[in-house]
Order: sequence, then structure tokens, then C-alpha cells
Amino acid sequence: MTMSQPQPWELQARKAKNILENSIPRQWLLPDDKLPPADEKSVMDFPRKSGLLTERELDITELSATALVEEMGADKLSAEEVVVAFLKRSVLGHNLFNFATEFMADKAIARAKELDEYYRKTGELVGPLHGVPISVKEHVGIQGLTCNAGFVAWVDQIATEDALLLQCLKKAGAVFHVRTNQPQSLMHLDCSNNLTGTTLNPHNRTLSPGGSSGGEGASTGFKCAPLGIGSDIGGSIRAPAAFCGSYGLKTTALRNPLGGVRAAGGGQESIRGVLGPLASQSIEDLELFQQVILDQEPWDTETSLIPMPWRRIRPTRDITVGIMWDDGTVCPHPPIIRALQFAKEKLIAAGIKVVDWEPYKHDHGWDIVSAMYFADGTESQQAILKESGEPYRPLTKWAFQYSSGTPLTVSENWALNNARDRYRDEYHALMKSHGVDFILTPTYLGVAAVLGEPQYWNYTAIWNILDLPAVVFPSGLVVDEELDKAEEGYQPRNVVDEREWKKYSPERYVGAPIALQLVGKRFKDEEVLAAAKVVKGVLNADASRKMN
Amino acid sequence: MTMSQPQPWELQARKAKNILENSIPRQWLLPDDKLPPADEKSVMDFPRKSGLLTERELDITELSATALVEEMGADKLSAEEVVVAFLKRSVLGHNLFNFATEFMADKAIARAKELDEYYRKTGELVGPLHGVPISVKEHVGIQGLTCNAGFVAWVDQIATEDALLLQCLKKAGAVFHVRTNQPQSLMHLDCSNNLTGTTLNPHNRTLSPGGSSGGEGASTGFKCAPLGIGSDIGGSIRAPAAFCGSYGLKTTALRNPLGGVRAAGGGQESIRGVLGPLASQSIEDLELFQQVILDQEPWDTETSLIPMPWRRIRPTRDITVGIMWDDGTVCPHPPIIRALQFAKEKLIAAGIKVVDWEPYKHDHGWDIVSAMYFADGTESQQAILKESGEPYRPLTKWAFQYSSGTPLTVSENWALNNARDRYRDEYHALMKSHGVDFILTPTYLGVAAVLGEPQYWNYTAIWNILDLPAVVFPSGLVVDEELDKAEEGYQPRNVVDEREWKKYSPERYVGAPIALQLVGKRFKDEEVLAAAKVVKGVLNADASRKMN
Repeated sequence: MTMSQPQPWELQARKAKNILENSIPRQWLLPDDKLPPADEKSVMDFPRKSGLLTERELDITELSATALVEEMGADKLSAEEVVVAFLKRSVLGHNLFNFATEFMADKAIARAKELDEYYRKTGELVGPLHGVPISVKEHVGIQGLTCNAGFVAWVDQIATEDALLLQCLKKAGAVFHVRTNQPQSLMHLDCSNNLTGTTLNPHNRTLSPGGSSGGEGASTGFKCAPLGIGSDIGGSIRAPAAFCGSYGLKTTALRNPLGGVRAAGGGQESIRGVLGPLASQSIEDLELFQQVILDQEPWDTETSLIPMPWRRIRPTRDITVGIMWDDGTVCPHPPIIRALQFAKEKLIAAGIKVVDWEPYKHDHGWDIVSAMYFADGTESQQAILKESGEPYRPLTKWAFQYSSGTPLTVSENWALNNARDRYRDEYHALMKSHGVDFILTPTYLGVAAVLGEPQYWNYTAIWNILDLPAVVFPSGLVVDEELDKAEEGYQPRNVVDEREWKKYSPERYVGAPIALQLVGKRFKDEEVLAAAKVVKGVLNADASRKMN
Repeated sequence: MTMSQPQPWELQARKAKNILENSIPRQWLLPDDKLPPADEKSVMDFPRKSGLLTERELDITELSATALVEEMGADKLSAEEVVVAFLKRSVLGHNLFNFATEFMADKAIARAKELDEYYRKTGELVGPLHGVPISVKEHVGIQGLTCNAGFVAWVDQIATEDALLLQCLKKAGAVFHVRTNQPQSLMHLDCSNNLTGTTLNPHNRTLSPGGSSGGEGASTGFKCAPLGIGSDIGGSIRAPAAFCGSYGLKTTALRNPLGGVRAAGGGQESIRGVLGPLASQSIEDLELFQQVILDQEPWDTETSLIPMPWRRIRPTRDITVGIMWDDGTVCPHPPIIRALQFAKEKLIAAGIKVVDWEPYKHDHGWDIVSAMYFADGTESQQAILKESGEPYRPLTKWAFQYSSGTPLTVSENWALNNARDRYRDEYHALMKSHGVDFILTPTYLGVAAVLGEPQYWNYTAIWNILDLPAVVFPSGLVVDEELDKAEEGYQPRNVVDEREWKKYSPERYVGAPIALQLVGKRFKDEEVLAAAKVVKGVLNADASRKMN
């Protein structure tokens, strides 16, 4: 009898680790002694220090998808050198914060060569994403590769075809170079599982990159890819984008295709998840992604989608922005309040109409959405966990207690559907009656969560239950230990507020960028992106001045 | 102890009867001896014989909504005389086939006078439905009136506001003059309840008017209203339209508003019911109805709707029509086959591309949809029935056995949702690969059902589970005892086929018009109406020649 005999689930989990390790392009791995020490929090400046990337490669990885395509269309860059640059940065990033589940270097380079060949022959780009490297959250299926969705039990599951979203992106010229990490069960705002472990935040490696698309947050935040694909049913695109200083869009449901995505509890429709983009550089890139997808009319294959073409919208300053300072349950941490205050001043100075927005029954919204996440009493999730015998991660247990533990009856589910629709109608009527076009709000109560700590979802989940599109972008500000001191003698309003308040002291979040979230009306995805460009533009002008 | 002591439910049900009887405008009631004998099957020619309506009133009631509005806009008709004409015809019809649940004569006439006043003052119409009388299925709520949805237990329920659909129609100038009958539970393709009894088919009073919008079928079939409002989750607009020789549209789900409609099992979303129009005269009127509703952007109030404006489509003959002769389970009765054959010949002669369409797994579709109708194991329906103690109508029991009798678990429901979406995708892919734009098919296995006999739903329900828009219109043919003889020695293919075949002999259906159903692609409601105009136009030209 050996004490160290691995459990069957560990043997199974090791397969995922092997897939990852065998996929890493060894030629770009730095020896451990060339890496920053493990206790160095921010690794954001390491690409330049590392010596792994050339100046030209560093410059390439600083470009947006839009700019990359322009450069390739002007014959100034080849698809091959672009993907190699991002692959090198990805390998480096993976060494630093463990964000990948599988590299696809050979296939990506081969595809890039094909694109270059096509361009040399025709003088034309394959499509509007010609040669753009895109990182892909693991549970988005890729033909012939495993797809475990964060479960040890699913480590042998092979996708029989590419997810429809990937098919659309591929047709437009995209190159998939790396698959990225996600938490067990996909239901954490963190990124930790029993397969390939825990992903860290590149801005501060004691922080979470957010979740569940944490690998994508880290990927785009560190510029391992100009665009990434995440999924969001409670904040899983937006929290990572916010925590990692990148951009993210949660669309209205049923716009982007979902076919070929693996997750527990398929067929649940009361609260719908979406696939959507994260971007390292700009809101324009989120828009480009959406255009590429919807211009291909995915509803002609996946008929549950709404056949609504992507509309080209001109940004306008003739908008009314409601600022929601607080959701009434948990008071945001000081840096968030500071960023909202900053945004308010700059928007007003830019002549944009700003009003305060009172949250309308967000606790009621949470009651509905949290009951819907696991309407089956977590049965489908637990069955998969029990199949392998893998241990429950703490945040899996945390999420499961949203459920009463017993399945809802269909009648109870119907009553919740009714409550949801009533709530949506009321919220919309309120926005109309106040003349509010967009709501500017925190993405999370704080700038990020310390690893293992994200517990409060409702700054993002509320927009899932309301099915309103929401875009996240960096305010341009970062945590400042002087400006963002904890409020002395704050009296928490409830136990949740107290729990979250206790997590705050500015030094815990040092280096973290401060994000904001802009929310629009249902199916006005185009408008919310256009408005976010306006808002970001106004903030940027000031933020860059401030940084000088 | 008296034998005849009424049951509590009978006392309760009597209230509905009292509401009806007190609402009938007495001045237009004919004495029994002026009515045709009860055993006279068709009463279609009675309006002219009755002496109740003037020549001018008869002419008015023969006009379409579109024509009525034109005439009122040219000052050739007043709204008041229009509504009086239709009210008189409605009272007459009600005497003959019991289709009303409540008349609203005084309010309707007062409203018409207001419209006339507005027109006199401004020279303009209030809107595109100015002065058009519309009959309304009872479960569509009207402010201040009871709304029982076919249940004795609900006879005291008062609607607190008009259904959103009615609000839209009212704004456009519509006048609601009569509310119409529906079956117990709303889940029969027939029209019989314990409140106001059984509605008959005006073409043959031994036949059902169809259901559940049977009152609307009878209303539009007899021209008691140029337009009516029905609802459809399995054929409830289309069966009545077909059985009664009128026109009906089941839209794609989530286009027309549903707010303010009362039914058991609210919040069930796996199979969605829709509200939609029936029309006495034309497909153009169905189109007018849809334009009026969607031009008002109801999604800005009822946010679960798809914000998809009504598109103006030019009819084109450049279409491919697949003819589905048979659904593979129940062979249609001879008159239906004859009408399809007639349509095929005329379409080909008109240069329209016609192919045969093989039904694709319609039995599988039925397995899914029938399980979804009562996913709660009929609990919500039975609770309402038990509340009053009213007896179950035979067709209520019939429908309830679609359910296993025990509620589905949410997980089972999710699996069915997945199966439904897969089936929809497959069906759509098949239509695309065959180049079929529209499917021309029976609405029901026969021209109508004898009262109490409609048991087979799947010529309509299949398009509910597929969520494809479908329009029903008269072929122009009627049952002919010579041409439509039963096939000698037919070998039924299964017990259901046998059951339905045994119901056929041409003399049972004498007088019944033969309808056809045209089905289009999801969200192509506009296209299916445009194509139905083309098909109907082609058939009409021939049908009228044939009739000469």
C-alpha cells in the first residue's frame, strides 16, 4: 500500500494536464530562472523585459484586431508573423499565470501560411478577420479536440465539429491559437479547476482573473490575443474583462450562436447564457467580432437565434446616461466609486446628459436569477462531478448553495419565468419614463477579487436576468493606495455588504485596473457598443492627460 | 330534498350565461319561429332570408376590413352603421350557432359614434382600422369584464386592463363588438364548455366550428366580423379558420403581444402560444392586422417580444412550394386530397415551381409537443377544474391524456427543449437543401370534424413545435358527395389512421368548405402571407371559373 496512490479522478485529470503540456511549443518556453519571482505581483511589463519577443513582435501584439487586419491588407504584416508573435506572448503568459488549457500552434501557423498564400495569390484578404489570432474558452468545442467544460469526468469527450461561432469566425479568416481555462462547473467568477489548476491575474498575481472566462480575461488582458471568446450567464465575460483590464461584451440572448458549446444543464432556457467577445484593445474590436458573426446569418443554421442582422450605428453624444452608484445591497469599493465620479465629471464636461439611476429591485432580480441557475437542484452538475469523484472546489459549493438543493417543479419554474418577464417589463418602463438610454455601473463591487474570493455576482447577473446588453471597458484609472483608502467607520448595511467590505484594503488590489460597465436596452447591442465608444472616448481623453 | 337542486358549479356557470344573455341586444333577436329549423344544417344563406338586415347592411357585412376602411375614408360609410350591421349579423349568428359569450353593443356603438365625430371634425380616420368591428376570443382580457378562459372557476375574474393587443388595435380605430366562445381548458380543436355551451359550424351545424378559437371561426365564417382575434398553440386559430371557411394566421412566436391573455399554465415557454387574426374575407386583412400591431412596436412595452418591425413584402411568383400530401401518420380525407391536387395543377399551370414535400419525423415532433403541452402533468389545469367542481368535458380528458399524468422534472423538460431545437434545425436544413420556401399542406386531416370528434392535432401542432408561421385560407372548393367518395377497401396504416378514416363519409361533411394551409420559414411571417396571396390568387381565378 502506497500513501501516494493517485485517486482515479486524479488519473483522469492528468490527461487534461498532459494535453496542455504536450501542446506547449517548447521552443518558446523560458527557463524558470528567467521568469520573474513567483511573489512578483504584476507581470504586465515582462514581455518587454523577457527578451523572448522581438521589438516588432511586441509591437504586433500591441495592435488591435482592426489594426492588424489593416496592416495585413496593406501587406505590411504577414498572418504568419502575427500568429507567431501572439503565440510567443501566449506561451510567456501561460508561464506567468497559467491561463491556457491547450495550445494549437502548428495548426494555427499552418492556417496563417494558407492565409498568406491566399493573399499573395489574390491580393485580397480572406475576410474581415484575416489572420487575427483568437483565443477560445475551452468549453467552446473544436473538432477533434477534447472538451471538458471544467469537469474531470468529461476529459475524454471529443468535439465532433467546430462550434458554429468558430465556423463563422474561421470563414472570416480568424486563426485559433490557444484554448483557455475555466473553473470547475463554469459557475465561479473565478478560474480554478481540478484539471489544469488556477489562472492568475496578470496585473496582480494574488488576484483572480475573474471567471468563468478567466483564461480569456488573462489572455486579452496580457495581449496574448487581440480577441477572445468567452461565455456569460452571470458575469462570466464581464468580470474577467473588468478584472484584467480588457474589453468584453455580453450581448442580448439569442444573437450569437451557441451550437457546439458544452456545459451542464443544456436545455435550460429560463436564464440564457451567451457567447461573446473579449478584446485586448478596443470596443471597435468587439464590434468587428459581432459584425463578422451576424453578417453570416447564423440563424439560418441555428434556428433558435433571432434573425436580426447587425446594424451599423453611428455613435452619438445625444444620449442620456444614468449612473448607478450602488445596487442597494453591496456598496462598491472606493476605487469603483472614484471611477464613477470621474466618469460623471468627464461626461458632463463633454456635454453628455447624465442622471443618477436608482437600482430597481435588484435583490428581487437576484432571487429570480439565482433560483434559475440550478433549477434542477444542481442535479446535472452534481451527476457529472460524482461521475469522476473529483473534489468540489470551494466556489462550486458556494454557487450550488444558490439552489435550495431540491429541483424546482416545472410549475415553480413557470412562476419564476412570469416573475422574470414582469420584472423585465417594469425595468424597461422605468428606463423609458426616466429617459435613460444607458446605465453606467460597476462591473463588480470591486476592481477584482483576491483569488478564491469572488462571491457576489449581482453587479453583472442582474443584466443577465434582465437580458440587457452590457459592455465592459477600462476606465483608464488604476487602484491608487492614496486615493482609494478604505472608508473609516463604514457601517455595513447587511451581512453581505459586511463580508464584501471586509475584503477591502487598497494594498490588496494594487496594480488592478478599474473597469466600468455600460448597459443598454434589450436587443440594442449595437447602440450600447456605440455609446460605450463615446463614453470611453470621453474618459480616455482625460485619462491619458491624467497619466502624463 | 329536490332532485333538481343545482350543483355549486352550475350556479357559478350560470353567471357566465347571465352575462351573455343580459348583453344580447334584444331588439335584434328574432323569435324562434322565424329561425330555420334546428335540423337545417347550413345557415349560411339565412342573413339574406332573415329580413333582419337591410340590403345595405348585408352589403356592408360582405366587405373586408380593408374595403370598409376605404369606404369610411371616402365618407361612403359611417362607423356607426358598420358596427350596427355587424352587430345585427352577430346577434343573428349567435341565435343560429351559439358563438358569443358577451355582446358589447352599447360600448361599440358609442365608440363608433366617437370615430364618426372625429372624422367629421378632422376629415381624417383615427387609424388604419378606423371603425372596423373585431370579435375577440373570451380569454383575451377586456378591462372591467370577466375573463374565464373556459373555466367555471374563473367566472368572477375581472380583467384590470385591456390586453396589449387590444390596446394596439383600439389605437388604430378598431371597435370590439362581441366576445366569443372557447372550449373548457382551451385545449380542444372543438368549442364546448360548461359555461355558455357548444358553438356550431355555420356551414353545417352538425359540425364543429373547430377550436379552441371556435367562436372566432364561426364569427368570421358567418361574417359577424371582418376580423377576429384567436390564439393558437396547437391549431387553435387555424382549425377554426379552416372548418369555417375563413382565413387565419398563426405567426412565429413572440411577434404579437400576449399581455393580458388569461390561460392555465402561464410561464410555460417550451411551446409558446400566439395571438393572431382570423378574417372573413381575405389574406390582405390578416396582413393589415399584423401591420397595425407591429407598427406600434409592442416590444417596447412587452419586452419578451422580438423587436422585429413588420416588413412590407411584394408578392412574387418566384417561389418553390412543397406539397405535403400526408403527414405519414393519418391519411387526409378525400376532399383534402382533391383540393391539394387541384392546387398543384393550378400552381403548375400558373408557372409556380411545385415539388412534393415528404414529412420529416412528424411523429417525433408530436412526441415532443404533446409532452410539452402539460409539462406539469395537467396540474395547473386540474386545479382550476377542481376549484369549481365542474365536470370534465370529453375532449378535455382526451387532451389531458397527452400527458403522462405526472409532472415532468425540469431536467426532462430541458431534454425536450434540446430535442425541439434539434428538430427545428434539422427541419429547416431540409427545407433549405430541397430549395423549398413554403409547404402547402392540409390544416386538418378532414375538412372539419363532426361536433365532439376532433382528436388528431398534428397537421397544425407540428408547425407550433417547429415555430413556423402558417396561414389558412379557403381553397374555393367545397365537399362534393360525388367527387369525394370514401376510398373503398382502404387499409388503415395504424390505429389512429383507422379511427380517423372511420369518421369519413362525404355526407357527414356536406356543405363544408375545403381549406389549405401554407407554412413558411421561421420569422418569415410576411413572406408566408405574401405567398398565400399568390397561391390564393391562382386558386381563386380557377375556383371562380369552376363555380360559374
